[in-house]
Amino acid sequence: MLRLYDYLSSGNGYKVRLLLTQLGLPFERIDLDILSGETRTTEFRAKNPNGKVPALELEDGTVLAESNAILFYLAEGSPFLPDDRLERAQTLQWMFFEQYSHEPNVAVARFMLLHLPEGGLPESGRAALARKQEQGHAALSVMEQHLAGHAYFAGDRYTIADIALYAYTHVANEGGIALTEYPAIRAWLDCVAAQPGHIPITVG
Amino acid sequence: MLRLYDYLSSGNGYKVRLLLTQLGLPFERIDLDILSGETRTTEFRAKNPNGKVPALELEDGTVLAESNAILFYLAEGSPFLPDDRLERAQTLQWMFFEQYSHEPNVAVARFMLLHLPEGGLPESGRAALARKQEQGHAALSVMEQHLAGHAYFAGDRYTIADIALYAYTHVANEGGIALTEYPAIRAWLDCVAAQPGHIPITVG
Repeated sequence: MLRLYDYLSSGNGYKVRLLLTQLGLPFERIDLDILSGETRTTEFRAKNPNGKVPALELEDGTVLAESNAILFYLAEGSPFLPDDRLERAQTLQWMFFEQYSHEPNVAVARFMLLHLPEGGLPESGRAALARKQEQGHAALSVMEQHLAGHAYFAGDRYTIADIALYAYTHVANEGGIALTEYPAIRAWLDCVAAQPGHIPITVG
Repeated sequence: MLRLYDYLSSGNGYKVRLLLTQLGLPFERIDLDILSGETRTTEFRAKNPNGKVPALELEDGTVLAESNAILFYLAEGSPFLPDDRLERAQTLQWMFFEQYSHEPNVAVARFMLLHLPEGGLPESGRAALARKQEQGHAALSVMEQHLAGHAYFAGDRYTIADIALYAYTHVANEGGIALTEYPAIRAWLDCVAAQPGHIPITVG
């Protein structure tokens, strides 16, 4: 059986859980506490030298890392990844956008607010948070512009690009990033949440 | 003809130039000065709403963004991208690693040192640079561990994963990140530079 090394509140882990569920693939979930260093042990680094979850262990013991590479692997040959060469590249374009311009801002702002130090953020932390929120809004603006003219991100249908971008966008408010001014994003979030087999981020 | 919006010293642009050259595909290169805001104009944002180079304009006017998505698009059906499903996912794993764990550190440290403000870096900038260098070394350590047992990153041959990781690794020293302690990386850099059709980053 597929084995997913995961952390429940991780949006990157959620992407994989969501796609596995929508594909109807059974999997065993191993929860690692990233806050107490469980992804930094020698044992786990033997599986993923980069020391991060999610990581997917295949039946033969091969371990695949990087949430969006795992999505691509699982989606090949399914309706979640277009067959057309250009549409497949556009799917990947949005997934690289997610990992470079979106996640490091929207997800990190959320992480900072979910795991506040005692006594709150110091001044340097508040400045860093504000910068993450500002750059998160810049990424959301790029998404809003695309979604104003398209129902989905690639191939005119629900793909792994939508799954990748949904993961942290739908909880952006937990990082102090309100979606009030992004009506097209809010409509798209509803549309993603209405897909068959959808599960919330809180389900392991 | 393919048109590449580019910036000569950009490693992300270099990835695409290098693959286009190795594929023998002719292209027109449009140089945009990222320092003077030429990628932030309304005109360019109509092509790439995220306002970044590289961006590849296809014959029909479609514009593809994100260097690694462009590499994937160009490499499909060529020896630079494996046909095997798992090897293709492993190729992408290293390309997502590059954009998330490597480029934001190794490339950003280089950018900071190539474009020093007059009078040098302020104290906050020196701390930020040191952090980028530290995280850059962490990414290089992950690469070194892999390359100690493999000649290339995926599929036992030269692929777009190697191109993606070569781009900023071979100029890491320009960011104050020495490769002295990474013998496997240095051997791999030589091997990549010896591939047929290789061009240096300085060639437009």
